[in-house]
Amino acid sequence: MSKFVSIRNIRFMIKEVFDSKSLTEYDYYSKHTEKMFDMVIDEALTLAVKLMYPVLEEMDKNQPVLENGQVKVHKSVKKIMKEFGQGGWIASGFSEAHGGDQIPLIIRGTISFIFAASNYSAAAYPELTAGAAELITSFGSKELIDTYVPKMLDGKWQGTMALTEPQAGSSLSDITTTAYPDKNGRFKIKGVKTFISAGDHDGVGNIIHLMLARIENAPSGAKGISLFVVPKKRTDENGNLIFNDITTTSIYHKLGYRGAPATELSMGEKDDCLGWLVGEENKGLSQMFQMMNETRILVGLGSCAIASAAYLAALEYTEQRPQGRPVTQKDPKSRQIPIIEHADVKRMLLFQKSVVEGSLSLVLQCSMYADLIKVSRKDEKEKYELLLDLLTPVAKAFPSEYGISSISNAIQCFGGYGYCDDFPVEQYFRDIRIHAIHEGTTGIQGMDLLGRKIVMKNGRAGLLFIEEVNKTLKTALEIGGLEFFAHKLQNAINQLEKVAGFLINIVGKKGIDVYLSDATLFLEFYGLIVISWQWLIQGIAAKKALSQDCSKKDKNFYKGKVFTMDYFFRYELPKILGLAARLMDNDNLTVNMKTAYFKD
Amino acid sequence: MSKFVSIRNIRFMIKEVFDSKSLTEYDYYSKHTEKMFDMVIDEALTLAVKLMYPVLEEMDKNQPVLENGQVKVHKSVKKIMKEFGQGGWIASGFSEAHGGDQIPLIIRGTISFIFAASNYSAAAYPELTAGAAELITSFGSKELIDTYVPKMLDGKWQGTMALTEPQAGSSLSDITTTAYPDKNGRFKIKGVKTFISAGDHDGVGNIIHLMLARIENAPSGAKGISLFVVPKKRTDENGNLIFNDITTTSIYHKLGYRGAPATELSMGEKDDCLGWLVGEENKGLSQMFQMMNETRILVGLGSCAIASAAYLAALEYTEQRPQGRPVTQKDPKSRQIPIIEHADVKRMLLFQKSVVEGSLSLVLQCSMYADLIKVSRKDEKEKYELLLDLLTPVAKAFPSEYGISSISNAIQCFGGYGYCDDFPVEQYFRDIRIHAIHEGTTGIQGMDLLGRKIVMKNGRAGLLFIEEVNKTLKTALEIGGLEFFAHKLQNAINQLEKVAGFLINIVGKKGIDVYLSDATLFLEFYGLIVISWQWLIQGIAAKKALSQDCSKKDKNFYKGKVFTMDYFFRYELPKILGLAARLMDNDNLTVNMKTAYFKD
Repeated sequence: MSKFVSIRNIRFMIKEVFDSKSLTEYDYYSKHTEKMFDMVIDEALTLAVKLMYPVLEEMDKNQPVLENGQVKVHKSVKKIMKEFGQGGWIASGFSEAHGGDQIPLIIRGTISFIFAASNYSAAAYPELTAGAAELITSFGSKELIDTYVPKMLDGKWQGTMALTEPQAGSSLSDITTTAYPDKNGRFKIKGVKTFISAGDHDGVGNIIHLMLARIENAPSGAKGISLFVVPKKRTDENGNLIFNDITTTSIYHKLGYRGAPATELSMGEKDDCLGWLVGEENKGLSQMFQMMNETRILVGLGSCAIASAAYLAALEYTEQRPQGRPVTQKDPKSRQIPIIEHADVKRMLLFQKSVVEGSLSLVLQCSMYADLIKVSRKDEKEKYELLLDLLTPVAKAFPSEYGISSISNAIQCFGGYGYCDDFPVEQYFRDIRIHAIHEGTTGIQGMDLLGRKIVMKNGRAGLLFIEEVNKTLKTALEIGGLEFFAHKLQNAINQLEKVAGFLINIVGKKGIDVYLSDATLFLEFYGLIVISWQWLIQGIAAKKALSQDCSKKDKNFYKGKVFTMDYFFRYELPKILGLAARLMDNDNLTVNMKTAYFKD
Repeated sequence: MSKFVSIRNIRFMIKEVFDSKSLTEYDYYSKHTEKMFDMVIDEALTLAVKLMYPVLEEMDKNQPVLENGQVKVHKSVKKIMKEFGQGGWIASGFSEAHGGDQIPLIIRGTISFIFAASNYSAAAYPELTAGAAELITSFGSKELIDTYVPKMLDGKWQGTMALTEPQAGSSLSDITTTAYPDKNGRFKIKGVKTFISAGDHDGVGNIIHLMLARIENAPSGAKGISLFVVPKKRTDENGNLIFNDITTTSIYHKLGYRGAPATELSMGEKDDCLGWLVGEENKGLSQMFQMMNETRILVGLGSCAIASAAYLAALEYTEQRPQGRPVTQKDPKSRQIPIIEHADVKRMLLFQKSVVEGSLSLVLQCSMYADLIKVSRKDEKEKYELLLDLLTPVAKAFPSEYGISSISNAIQCFGGYGYCDDFPVEQYFRDIRIHAIHEGTTGIQGMDLLGRKIVMKNGRAGLLFIEEVNKTLKTALEIGGLEFFAHKLQNAINQLEKVAGFLINIVGKKGIDVYLSDATLFLEFYGLIVISWQWLIQGIAAKKALSQDCSKKDKNFYKGKVFTMDYFFRYELPKILGLAARLMDNDNLTVNMKTAYFKD
């Protein structure tokens, strides 16, 4: 067990729960073997332990600064980008044609999990670069790919996603950054972008922004948004890098995630900022969203990663900290026990373990779907696409929101010490809080789930999900000792169908605004059921293992899995009772509430 | 409306919900009038606006430092202690005999709420001083009172509560700081105390620790703990202040609450630290707990105060920030609306309002009980004592825990801006997190409620609570339009009786450890019902007001109250369904879970 991830759990997930090895039977992944997966994961852990974790607190305490128009970051960023480039970590998920390893997402996700758990801010730099490079390889011309992608995958240039503007955050269709075509097929960019992560820093030679902008006279709204590559420095006719008129105007001081700068950028102050169109005109938003979906899963992954580090820190502390005695022990002279032996502390640890490992399971499930999409034929492919679409908002939001509570519980395990920077949990509490906001707030995820994913293709995705659950239920019932959980999950699915039916009915009766008004709560409701499903899948794997010979250590591990599944079904899943009651209430309360009623 | 509290709501609470004026009919409070209450609240607000709020962020950013053994704090602390001393704010709740104003706790609590909302760290200095001084006046000799109390109430000397030791936090009975009697009736103190708030600073002339220690050869456990006054500087025979051998060995760097130092103190390194016994030998813990109960209510108050400031900041922002359009508006050229008009944002605001004003209501209810204890005869007095005892853990824990979510929702209302220090909500999120830990963690409060308060005197407190609720239900049913809520609350009480009955049964069947294992969840369950009751009380007051002539502005205010009650009953109270299901489950899960199962 490292300080921040459980490698035993990772192996359980990618071997016993998700048969990631099976992917190597497809041509696209056939270069790989299970052993190679193991090796790459071990290497990632070594890198995380050596390079990332040691500077976790230092990077938090020495925030990026903006000096003379240049953002300066912790010196280890340079090292990290170099190592991640040279070691092929940024490229690992790319196709061989682009210099990558064609490693499946379930393995790449696992690696991202390890890096993010060791130091989320540090991991963001290469992660953002990979995402930006992937956008270029997916939609860009050969020239754009040749110019930018190799340097990005080598870690020499930083990539960013430049979407948000001061007046357009959640409402992306309102962006006003404008691209004016010039005679050479390029564009002059003018506008302001804000909250751009790694939008400028001195750890790399150049910053490549994948930027949304509106071509002059484009239609208004989402239909008029295009995607551009806008580098901080562009190449002149002699092949030299010259300033491309992007100015970092300010840098934010954030609650957490302090190791990576969030910047405000101004393009074209001197009318000399050039951008290159990526893909088709006015298709920018949908292209970006193709990327965004993967990014959302990575946000979910980042959340479980930070919560994992907090959980393991709390676990270690509670084993070592003596305090109090068993409730039944009245002798004040008796020895104090480690606090992990108090039921309430075990409850808090089980909560954390259930959130961390349940969320990780969902994220890896989504990754597996993404991998299968790449190699499956039409029908199967569509099935996985629908499932991935449906579960993405859950995989983004559930870990982000429950992760906050999870880390709050980690702090609670430490008592007063958890409130101080002698231990890293207070940092984790700050770091994780961004995830419910960036790449689409929880509210946006709720609207996406209820307003789009549940209703798309006549609700087919939801039905496919229930089919998947039914498969799990069938397997569970074939194994002894899981009837209770299968029964509970079946009930929850019945509840889900009832709630969804009630809500769909509302659209016609009361309108779409009432239908969507509690979308965030529906998302939590759905999330609890989805995570229960993932726990049952894990429970099946654990029960199977327990039915065979295994070491004492393994037995303990699998029993821990069964207990944690049990915890989730008995402590967390019942929350759907209150949520269902709420969702099937009939009052339109938040739609009717007036702004004036909030006032004094 | 100020930036941090709603004065309209405060007036509603102390006039319309709780008839605080009625207290002036008792001798003890007869010096006061309603008009004086109003004036003192206005003055408090002025002071908060002028002196405290302006340095909120500065005190956070310039944390206390330990230099050459002396803790240095923000310069405004000196000013604040002086103003609070000279203005009679520290003394306000004390009896006239001790130079106070005999102001009722419901008014003093309201004032504390205002100060804490404006700047929690700053408010802590005088608040801690008042608490320590009250301990001396309650149990100390005349000599101790004369020596310390006037200077403390004048704000010249700081008071602290010095309980925690590195090895004894939640388990106070394990403290080892030792007091060795000398020939002059004094004691030599030796030991280490940690996490002592305001344990040293340069804003006052002296620091007076109310310290728990064990007299040499005292019985072990809680029965051998005594209370001492241990000043940083003591008076020598010539009346000069000399060093009393207390060394500040370190200072913590905290997540929030950074304006006030948390210190580690070492007593008697040169064998020259003198302490004076307060009250009887070996009665220290119960004396301290008399104070602690009031402190716990103040912690609850501090939590709603910080959450109030965050809520009002979010309210202001959501009214000003345009983003997005109504769900039914498809024209991208139409104007963006302020985000407060989105149902999901209204939901988040209603959640915050319901937590802040519901919690404040409970805290003031407790304060009112405390005030009535002071002036009531035997039977009545016992009733109020039992109710106060019962509700104290709820008043401490509910605002602390729900306050975290409340402020997390405030951040969410700001989106990315809420994650940055351009707005104060990220600070509030850090500041509030201490409250679930200090003065008894939430777990400790749960054990207190279920293990002591519910069962004491054959469960009489719980029955008295239900009687109080029944009175409220009766009044509610007499007024039109509240039947729904009365009905819901009645159901909740039935549920409570069922759960409590189930749990009491467990004691005999499965033992006290199983009974107490989910005490924290019982506390939340109980809290939701208690706060619903408080909302119904507020709803009654609002409905009464609405049935009479009132201004448009007032009408909006009362409608807001009714909507918020409605919100709490429809969105929060249903959470008891899941909690009840959990609490009446039969698995002993957390008791059976073994430490080994958590391991890799």
